[in-house]
Amino acid sequence: MTQPRERTRITRLQEKGSADRAALDALLDRVHVGHFGLTDPDGRPVVIPTAVVRDGDRVLAHGSTGSPWIRALAAGAPTCLAVTSFDGLVVARSAFESSIHYRSAVLFGSCTRLDDDGKLHALDLVTEALVPGRVAEIRRPAERELSATLVFALPIGEWSLKISDGWPDDPPGDVSGGAWAGVVPVMTAYGAPAAAPDLRAGIDVPASVLRLASPVRGPGAP
Amino acid sequence: MTQPRERTRITRLQEKGSADRAALDALLDRVHVGHFGLTDPDGRPVVIPTAVVRDGDRVLAHGSTGSPWIRALAAGAPTCLAVTSFDGLVVARSAFESSIHYRSAVLFGSCTRLDDDGKLHALDLVTEALVPGRVAEIRRPAERELSATLVFALPIGEWSLKISDGWPDDPPGDVSGGAWAGVVPVMTAYGAPAAAPDLRAGIDVPASVLRLASPVRGPGAP
Repeated sequence: MTQPRERTRITRLQEKGSADRAALDALLDRVHVGHFGLTDPDGRPVVIPTAVVRDGDRVLAHGSTGSPWIRALAAGAPTCLAVTSFDGLVVARSAFESSIHYRSAVLFGSCTRLDDDGKLHALDLVTEALVPGRVAEIRRPAERELSATLVFALPIGEWSLKISDGWPDDPPGDVSGGAWAGVVPVMTAYGAPAAAPDLRAGIDVPASVLRLASPVRGPGAP
Repeated sequence: MTQPRERTRITRLQEKGSADRAALDALLDRVHVGHFGLTDPDGRPVVIPTAVVRDGDRVLAHGSTGSPWIRALAAGAPTCLAVTSFDGLVVARSAFESSIHYRSAVLFGSCTRLDDDGKLHALDLVTEALVPGRVAEIRRPAERELSATLVFALPIGEWSLKISDGWPDDPPGDVSGGAWAGVVPVMTAYGAPAAAPDLRAGIDVPASVLRLASPVRGPGAP
């Protein structure tokens, strides 16, 4: 982990920096919505939400060739990618000590555009990350579809990770008072799949989708 | 809704712009993690995740006086705030048509720092948005605590909203094939509250926290 600039922060409370690459990977493997920052030609900030998927030492993203911001990212514009998981509420005995449990990764760098075989492989990884097992259930992408999609990768090089997962840290004067304190976790899961209105009769929910509809589980995106 | 620049986009599929202020408010009232974009002194993008709460025609955020990025936001640096809800998976008959259900708001502008009474009121609103009813259960903020916190507001003026909530849009050649298609919703809820280790005996979980521990419900943050 390199850290050439002030780390971002959600709150000043209970947060701690982590150089734990495994913890970074765990976050990136769980949360598939990222926010890319860009600077527009006038020097103003722009933030682009997009799906993100880790592939080893890089983060894959993709988008339409029709989007100027996607084109700028794919062309290697300097960027900052934030991936954040809202994991719970820290309910302290005062508003000041109340905060949230989160995991927050910020990566800096420039993306590289993928072409040809690399692109196809990367899109398969994206599909598999979101719906494991789906690639084997569907046809291969058409050339026209590949042409309409930009795929790019941000190296995991310059990054920081902050994790807030502690208990409320109230001062003694508040602990001795009458207010409750604790943590309320966020639970996420996929719900029951709903078939498309144009689904032909006799086509069952596939194994990939059945596996998604899991029991409610712990913090983070499904 | 003004729209002076290209809107951000997650995918090119099934997305539609919305000028529906009520839909924007519904998103901002449900998702309390936002990503602020900034441009650093070298012209490079930075993205800062932080808690956000709508207050009428503005979005409130706060942070530590110790964070340079929070200070820059509070001082009115040009910013872009993205608030995104990951609402489900669109499982189409091809990878190309597969996408996600989301709501994505992007607001542009500059924040204004709140002082004195405005600050206290804003922090109460933040507490109430995250844990409704909590303000009445805890002591008032101390002067020292208020001094350590920067509170700032971004006006809801220049914004765009995109919502993806449709069914898979597969071409006839794929619909007639054997692949399943549909939508898998994301469900979120708060789990059971856990008392802090230093909680004194005899202090029950308060009404505000009991109300949070809701049954599993639909898309969006809890």
